Amino acid sequence: MCELLGMNANVPTDIVFSLSGLIQRGGNTGPHRDGWGITFYQGLGYRTFKDHQPCCHSPVARFIQGYPIKSEAIIAHIRQANRGNVSLVNTHPFTRELWGRHWTYAHNGQLKGYRNLKTGNYRPVGETDSERAFCWILHQLSIKYPKRPANWSTVFRFIASLADALREKGVFNMLLSDGKFMMAYCSTQLHWITRRSPFGKATLLDQDIEIDFQQHTHPDDVVSVIATQPLTHNETWNKIESGSYVLFHLGERIF
Amino acid sequence: MCELLGMNANVPTDIVFSLSGLIQRGGNTGPHRDGWGITFYQGLGYRTFKDHQPCCHSPVARFIQGYPIKSEAIIAHIRQANRGNVSLVNTHPFTRELWGRHWTYAHNGQLKGYRNLKTGNYRPVGETDSERAFCWILHQLSIKYPKRPANWSTVFRFIASLADALREKGVFNMLLSDGKFMMAYCSTQLHWITRRSPFGKATLLDQDIEIDFQQHTHPDDVVSVIATQPLTHNETWNKIESGSYVLFHLGERIF
Repeated sequence: MCELLGMNANVPTDIVFSLSGLIQRGGNTGPHRDGWGITFYQGLGYRTFKDHQPCCHSPVARFIQGYPIKSEAIIAHIRQANRGNVSLVNTHPFTRELWGRHWTYAHNGQLKGYRNLKTGNYRPVGETDSERAFCWILHQLSIKYPKRPANWSTVFRFIASLADALREKGVFNMLLSDGKFMMAYCSTQLHWITRRSPFGKATLLDQDIEIDFQQHTHPDDVVSVIATQPLTHNETWNKIESGSYVLFHLGERIF
Repeated sequence: MCELLGMNANVPTDIVFSLSGLIQRGGNTGPHRDGWGITFYQGLGYRTFKDHQPCCHSPVARFIQGYPIKSEAIIAHIRQANRGNVSLVNTHPFTRELWGRHWTYAHNGQLKGYRNLKTGNYRPVGETDSERAFCWILHQLSIKYPKRPANWSTVFRFIASLADALREKGVFNMLLSDGKFMMAYCSTQLHWITRRSPFGKATLLDQDIEIDFQQHTHPDDVVSVIATQPLTHNETWNKIESGSYVLFHLGERIF
């Protein structure tokens, strides 16, 4: 299994604090030694930092921790390989274009019978169940909506129905974003929290680090964080129910 | 205009020396202040480091110079914006999937009348002439070869014919790679060199750095480097003729 981390905010925000917790689980407090990756959106553009080394030893992870990139939408993933060997091509997140937007996806879980999933013009490059499931979702979306759709709540409901079908093949926890929306679909475990004024303090579960969000925010900031397991104590995280999804936009949960 | 840098090798090789020269042109010895990017292939996977800051001041560029990623195929680009504003979405290289492979592309030049180029399922996300031309090339390839082709020399000849058509719209110097092949198409300026045993010494033109390749290589290594302008003196670079292309595989020029 793997760990997921997502962020959606109404202003460009860095994720160094949450990432510090996650990185410990990449071979230190957790067993996820098989690579890691993180995608930052900045406007319509994105950049992904990836490494197939354990992130607790990754020079790229150390660099990212010391270089706070501010973004409105972030997806990170640390991997414990099941399907597909440990290599860069199999390292999440995956990004593909649909409707003239870059869509980024990361998956936690394991699927059976995934090789039959038809992917049309979205061909997988690596061997993972995860990438194939992503390509299948995009293919289904491109059939259902040949042009960029206008009603986004309907689109995400349709994506959730696709995720339901994948969940029948195994475990399918997913983060998906186009840089504006952030969708979190829960199959077994996924938690979220929204931080807003008045901001408090939080302490990481995985490392002895405390942050006072008030010192790093403006009163109007709204920042939601999604993670496989809660990253902090002294804060209340919401568990997403199995077979449900939550949707964020400008930092707020909108579904 | 921009500067291009490419590398193709028969063993995973780092590009720190050449990159050190290029980075100086990103706002220091050259005027290319509008962002930069570099893509490293490792097997079928790739990772791209990008920044819309001038690369001579970019923390990402400093990190990359201190972290020699070994790769068989590398494409780098430093940008002086003409079409499209300075933002991450408009920063080269661009990567898209075709035939189950990741294709990476960077362009130097400027095109007119590019908005009419049809791109089918490969929709541009940013506003540059460069990204649209790339999407058009991929769309044309997907029409001509709906399935992964077998005869690669024919494919690259077809890509060159597409590049010829783009050159009629302005200036079109291009690097293109799927991680195995590296194609360099010259419209106005592009140079290449192949280094092999017996390896010698070289000195950068843009910075007072000398390297003795013999200390960093094995006798069987073959490494080709492509750049807008030669990066070293005391070596002989080959100029690609206008309207021509060269093709590399495993470090060797094969066309």
